[in-house]
Amino acid sequence: MAQQERGTRSRAAILAAAAQVFDERGYDAASTTEILARTGLTRGALYHHFPSKEAIAIALVEAHSEALAVPDQPVKLQAVIDLTLAFAHRLQDDPVLRASVRLAVEQTSFSRPPQTSYDQSNTAVLGLLQQAEEQGEILPGVDLQQAASTIIGSFTGLQVMSQVYSGRADLPERVSVFWQFLLPGLATPGMLGRLRTTPPPAR
Amino acid sequence: MAQQERGTRSRAAILAAAAQVFDERGYDAASTTEILARTGLTRGALYHHFPSKEAIAIALVEAHSEALAVPDQPVKLQAVIDLTLAFAHRLQDDPVLRASVRLAVEQTSFSRPPQTSYDQSNTAVLGLLQQAEEQGEILPGVDLQQAASTIIGSFTGLQVMSQVYSGRADLPERVSVFWQFLLPGLATPGMLGRLRTTPPPAR
Repeated sequence: MAQQERGTRSRAAILAAAAQVFDERGYDAASTTEILARTGLTRGALYHHFPSKEAIAIALVEAHSEALAVPDQPVKLQAVIDLTLAFAHRLQDDPVLRASVRLAVEQTSFSRPPQTSYDQSNTAVLGLLQQAEEQGEILPGVDLQQAASTIIGSFTGLQVMSQVYSGRADLPERVSVFWQFLLPGLATPGMLGRLRTTPPPAR
Repeated sequence: MAQQERGTRSRAAILAAAAQVFDERGYDAASTTEILARTGLTRGALYHHFPSKEAIAIALVEAHSEALAVPDQPVKLQAVIDLTLAFAHRLQDDPVLRASVRLAVEQTSFSRPPQTSYDQSNTAVLGLLQQAEEQGEILPGVDLQQAASTIIGSFTGLQVMSQVYSGRADLPERVSVFWQFLLPGLATPGMLGRLRTTPPPAR
């Protein structure tokens, strides 16, 4: 195995192990010693890739941004709904995303600006809502920034509550129900019958 | 000062100091040493009232229940809205309630069932929604348990996000906006114009 390939594998192994440890323990209680123990790598190999625990956490938060890939959908409100459903689905069993969300929700000594993940989500959701408005999908008079903040804030809490009650097993269902309540205050009446609030059949 | 009165004051001082420490540091990083330092009491006095850090946290969680006092309102959907607005208002500067919410949102070694605070909220909100339905305030076909879970889950995330962006200064505004989006999917059309989503003028 070439040295570069070995390096890439080591980095991925560290991130995967760190995600588990951050997800299970939170930032402050996570230790590089435990992360190392789960990878079998040396401390030297760890520091080659990441100078500190914080550097690992920053790399994990970037996973949050990657999970916001916007679905290719002609109906832009459907794209927003599908974005939240896909995010909910990935949160169920992607430890990297789970770790990044826990880093965003809990107050810890992790010094990265805590708004980062919310700002990333806001950019994605607000952009889609603006396209939805241009296409006439949004009720007149709706403040799009308020809508985006409400969607992101509510999602944040729905996933906390789903984690507490079911380890996130019921998260897609909770998100689907949220949309059924929210859409009458957001979408034009003509859109309501056309929007699907459950995951696409292909899943 | 009588011994009993001194005891009551000591207990309140411990809870007030503990609330600050839990709110600032979270459960795992909070120490009884720091709580004691803020009260000026002896360790013996602390253990007289609370056998452990966990016992203090349990007493704080009870504050969550007390904050769910149901407003006396003939319109029951208005009572639900006012309950969330009053809770938002208290979260801004009541350290005991802030601590109890942090204990509910974060995953820590605190062993009390994490559902407790959500169950308490559910009892209060669902009870009001049932009365609202009896009074004809709710859209036909709405699942009241789903509505209660959506309101509580969304509120949970709105306050996390408000904490991150403004230290909860904008929380009442975020809750008010949430209701403006949610009500068209929850209340009968005739109710919509009658419901106030901002705090009562008396505040």
